[in-house]
Amino acid sequence: MQELKERIVKEGKVLPGNIVKVDGFLNHRVDPKLMDHIADEFKKYFDVDDITLVLTAEASGIALSAICAGKWNVPMIYAKKAKSDNIEGGLLKSEIYSYTYKKKVTQLLSQEWISPDDKVLIIDDFMANGEAIRGLTDLVAQSGAELKGIGVAVEKGFQKGGDRLRDMGLNYHALAVIDQADENGFVFREDDPYLYE
Amino acid sequence: MQELKERIVKEGKVLPGNIVKVDGFLNHRVDPKLMDHIADEFKKYFDVDDITLVLTAEASGIALSAICAGKWNVPMIYAKKAKSDNIEGGLLKSEIYSYTYKKKVTQLLSQEWISPDDKVLIIDDFMANGEAIRGLTDLVAQSGAELKGIGVAVEKGFQKGGDRLRDMGLNYHALAVIDQADENGFVFREDDPYLYE
Repeated sequence: MQELKERIVKEGKVLPGNIVKVDGFLNHRVDPKLMDHIADEFKKYFDVDDITLVLTAEASGIALSAICAGKWNVPMIYAKKAKSDNIEGGLLKSEIYSYTYKKKVTQLLSQEWISPDDKVLIIDDFMANGEAIRGLTDLVAQSGAELKGIGVAVEKGFQKGGDRLRDMGLNYHALAVIDQADENGFVFREDDPYLYE
Repeated sequence: MQELKERIVKEGKVLPGNIVKVDGFLNHRVDPKLMDHIADEFKKYFDVDDITLVLTAEASGIALSAICAGKWNVPMIYAKKAKSDNIEGGLLKSEIYSYTYKKKVTQLLSQEWISPDDKVLIIDDFMANGEAIRGLTDLVAQSGAELKGIGVAVEKGFQKGGDRLRDMGLNYHALAVIDQADENGFVFREDDPYLYE
């Protein structure tokens, strides 16, 4: 997605350890107009008329997913990070490793709000190792719902998350895959061909 | 806001301890159409053409705020919960007490994304004791930006948060103020009169 890549080049930063910072428009300050355009771009890769639910992970995926769900006229649900050891009933759980928090994190989803009849599109703003997405696919599997696809705005292609999903044959697309990020700037992978236009 | 009150009556639950649960449409599963209508309702209380930034708190305020910011054509920013003791530069900080986590939580905001020129409207989905909002107003004050108002979708009026803001003379409005929530159901306060229509 050209517009997204241009924003990354113009406003993104690379910190030591190949950390890519896009918090000026994607995941701290949010540019809702860009989110709107990203939703339109996802529509070229996913049959959004055939989904019933957008699923994302707390917290940074929520803004993009809410705007996508609004445009596609379906509800959105976000997996919460477990707050404590309190065990409530009716919760689906997945264990993931958070590289940000450097510890195991539990994702929680109320069974009440996802059913085996649902057709789910997972949306997230950013993927590196893909642990959050792995947890979300696990929650969908537990719910019995159908996973229709996984859409990510920005993927760090030089880490393992995206390629693992591709190798699994999942309907996964990212709109800007960064294959290299260092003091020389960003190198992007070529976009996937559109499926719906 | 009649539509919001009807959703609370129809889908909300009261748990022991007067806990109000509206996670089927507001803060776990999100109904983006309702968020869109809430944004329109806020516009009757706040001069949204005279703001430059929507500010909210991670995580449950993000969906509503993103949709509001999209409709009002301004960026949105959310205060993050401190992840650990790592001290980064350029961060505004406020200490609040989280009744959910039952401990002190630090809210963080990058100074880079809020300036003294900004005119800020704070938006949140839900308020009980108002600690998150208090922290957000503190962040706005630290930034030097102008606080234009505070809009909350659902307020637990029988707790102290909302009335404290009213007593301070702040431009604060909530769209559904619950004055009583128990086994008999919900009792709402009368709506504030519209300021812009």
